[in-house]
Amino acid sequence: MIGMRFADLLLKKRNGGTLSAEEIDFMISGYVSGEIPDYQMSAFCMAVYYQGMNREETIDLTMSMVRSGETLDLSQIAGSIVDKHSTGGVGDKTTLVLGPLVAACGVPVAKMSGRGLGHTGGTLDKLAAIPGFSSEVATDAFIQQVKDIGICVAGQTKDLAPADKLLYGLRDVTATVDSIPLIASSIMSKKLAAGADGLVLDVKVGKGAFMKDLTQAKELAELMVQIGIGAGRRVTACLTGMDQPLGYAVGNSLEVVEAITTLKGDGPRDLLELCLVLGSEMLVLAGKANSLERAMSLLQDAIAQGRALKKLQELIVAQGGNPKVISDYSLLPLGQHVTEVTSQVAGYVTGLDALAIGTASMQVGAGRRHKEDSIDLGAGVLLRKKLGDPVVSGEALAVLYSSAPPPAEAADTVRAAYCMAEQPIPSTPLVMHRVDGSMS
Amino acid sequence: MIGMRFADLLLKKRNGGTLSAEEIDFMISGYVSGEIPDYQMSAFCMAVYYQGMNREETIDLTMSMVRSGETLDLSQIAGSIVDKHSTGGVGDKTTLVLGPLVAACGVPVAKMSGRGLGHTGGTLDKLAAIPGFSSEVATDAFIQQVKDIGICVAGQTKDLAPADKLLYGLRDVTATVDSIPLIASSIMSKKLAAGADGLVLDVKVGKGAFMKDLTQAKELAELMVQIGIGAGRRVTACLTGMDQPLGYAVGNSLEVVEAITTLKGDGPRDLLELCLVLGSEMLVLAGKANSLERAMSLLQDAIAQGRALKKLQELIVAQGGNPKVISDYSLLPLGQHVTEVTSQVAGYVTGLDALAIGTASMQVGAGRRHKEDSIDLGAGVLLRKKLGDPVVSGEALAVLYSSAPPPAEAADTVRAAYCMAEQPIPSTPLVMHRVDGSMS
Repeated sequence: MIGMRFADLLLKKRNGGTLSAEEIDFMISGYVSGEIPDYQMSAFCMAVYYQGMNREETIDLTMSMVRSGETLDLSQIAGSIVDKHSTGGVGDKTTLVLGPLVAACGVPVAKMSGRGLGHTGGTLDKLAAIPGFSSEVATDAFIQQVKDIGICVAGQTKDLAPADKLLYGLRDVTATVDSIPLIASSIMSKKLAAGADGLVLDVKVGKGAFMKDLTQAKELAELMVQIGIGAGRRVTACLTGMDQPLGYAVGNSLEVVEAITTLKGDGPRDLLELCLVLGSEMLVLAGKANSLERAMSLLQDAIAQGRALKKLQELIVAQGGNPKVISDYSLLPLGQHVTEVTSQVAGYVTGLDALAIGTASMQVGAGRRHKEDSIDLGAGVLLRKKLGDPVVSGEALAVLYSSAPPPAEAADTVRAAYCMAEQPIPSTPLVMHRVDGSMS
Repeated sequence: MIGMRFADLLLKKRNGGTLSAEEIDFMISGYVSGEIPDYQMSAFCMAVYYQGMNREETIDLTMSMVRSGETLDLSQIAGSIVDKHSTGGVGDKTTLVLGPLVAACGVPVAKMSGRGLGHTGGTLDKLAAIPGFSSEVATDAFIQQVKDIGICVAGQTKDLAPADKLLYGLRDVTATVDSIPLIASSIMSKKLAAGADGLVLDVKVGKGAFMKDLTQAKELAELMVQIGIGAGRRVTACLTGMDQPLGYAVGNSLEVVEAITTLKGDGPRDLLELCLVLGSEMLVLAGKANSLERAMSLLQDAIAQGRALKKLQELIVAQGGNPKVISDYSLLPLGQHVTEVTSQVAGYVTGLDALAIGTASMQVGAGRRHKEDSIDLGAGVLLRKKLGDPVVSGEALAVLYSSAPPPAEAADTVRAAYCMAEQPIPSTPLVMHRVDGSMS
């Protein structure tokens, strides 16, 4: 009988109808309990791909997914807790910089991250490159650590939004990933269940991002902000460019090094800028600054005075890692095969395909194709040239790091990622658009 | 890896692409073998609901489904074998009349039928009302009986087009039944596997039919004829009206009685007309007549001379049934509760909703809601008034037969099925359109 009833809802959505909060809750709770089978749910997702869901339906779906599991109660932690989420890009080590930086300014960082399925690992894979570092932290210990040192970065507890986990796994194999309401509810259900008061969303736009165009990215950002407001949270979204990789390092150990140099005040300009922009939003949402300008100067002080770097050190110590990596990068695993990829032409870099660089880093072993794949923490691509840089023929474009001789295709992939022209093209701003939901 | 590959095909169809014969065959054989899971297949069906399939894809899908199981080899039977398929309507007992009628004209009838899931039973359920009649006939015996007496009506062997059985079961619960290419390939795969040389399709159109409008019904009919031609068979389709039930009887025993009276030359005009029209097409396809007019007169002779009725008797005897039912209807089970539904108004019948009458017959126990439901062979609705008939207030519109007192809603459903007006409306022709694929 339950299957019958869901078939009616499926038909309704297929024909362009709107589902009520009760109907959506029936669907999600039935799916999680196993009463609604995968084959009905995948047909539903496909119907949503074509028919969409309106704002109310998307909010209802998100809240049903939040209710499908536990929610993290962070009320014991003093102060306003602000989380950050990125839709993911190539070379995005923002969390490694932003976490310590914001915590150093007195905003508690209680971060639950997922493992990455993509070109390089996720935040947890990057942290796993630090010898001894553990991201398996029980909930009580997690909260205690945030109370003690103001920051903890741990693996997501299984019980947060289990409906999303099930649904995402199904969408992944049924060509129903790229539906804006399904993406928005997926991201927001996990973030709302993770218990922060405020949320800064970094929605990547461009060739190397999931959202290829600005219009769709705006739609996603606005929808996620609306969901957050609907759930009584303060949310701000920044749309940031992801045509070329962020920074120079793509690969787990390489990215840890780049994050450390950034906290030392010596990082790539684009990575630093993004961390300052997102960090300012976080400080304002947390009430630590009453303007983005003021927040920015607090963040810059935290770097200049070494407090941000010191906070990273405390984090590493608290989670069992070796803090000496901060001064001795050789403690991090790094592929022994170092292969320069040189340019066969001269000119200015006018295009640098982030996705292709991601593919190359996967080809040398830095990423996962499947959930069960292991990852080579020491593998990756270190770029030597980025957009706008002049290149002489024979000069290195990038360096590959791998534990075995890299496949020939990896160098070809890197070379093909670069577009060269006689004249440089004007650079585009990193932050393309901002959706402010903090005042609602 | 296979799941991965099918996900690519799914994405291609989702984006409006066209699948090759090899891709479709990969899909169907993978689905039948269990390598492609239901949840991917249901998402595919939903994508087809929105994106469609072109003629070539639909033919390829049909042929892949035919190849998914055994095909019936009827070559031992002398003469051209012509099958008939109806898309299903309310009160449709055509096969019970047409089978003996066509067989009496020397065209072998080798009919594999399915059990019905709907308002009343299918052909096999109707035959089950005849005491002792068995439709479980092994393939060898099936062919032998056709050779011996020219007719056999049996349950479909499991192994014909198993892909269709799986796929239809999945579509039924995932809101993907009403897709014309999926309907066409489902019907034609079973019919092609059943081995006839020619096929007459009765595509019902109207309120009581699956196809509500003529345009869609034409599209379906033309597509099925194209599939048949693609498979080297002769196929003709007739589009016939299904606004009101066919004949007066709806329910298994009641319909057997009506079929017998029709073979005696005393049946309802619409049922007789439909049987003569479809029968003529079958005789022409089988080469027994070189014109529809000539065929029609052969059929009329077979009824007038009692040969059609005698053929029914032979069929009943051959399959273990009691042939005395032909003269003694009281041998058929019939519900002991007989309830007249009277009209509360006077006028002419200008509307008679076939679907509502089907629902009423289900309410008194004549149909199945679910595959596992049992059926009350003696239950049903016997209409007293049809389109165009004058009605006096208080006069009987219909009689309900049931084994227990009927639910009050059944009479209400019947009453609501009738539309009455002061003036009669002109009647519409039974055959609305014809698609002739016999010459191709």
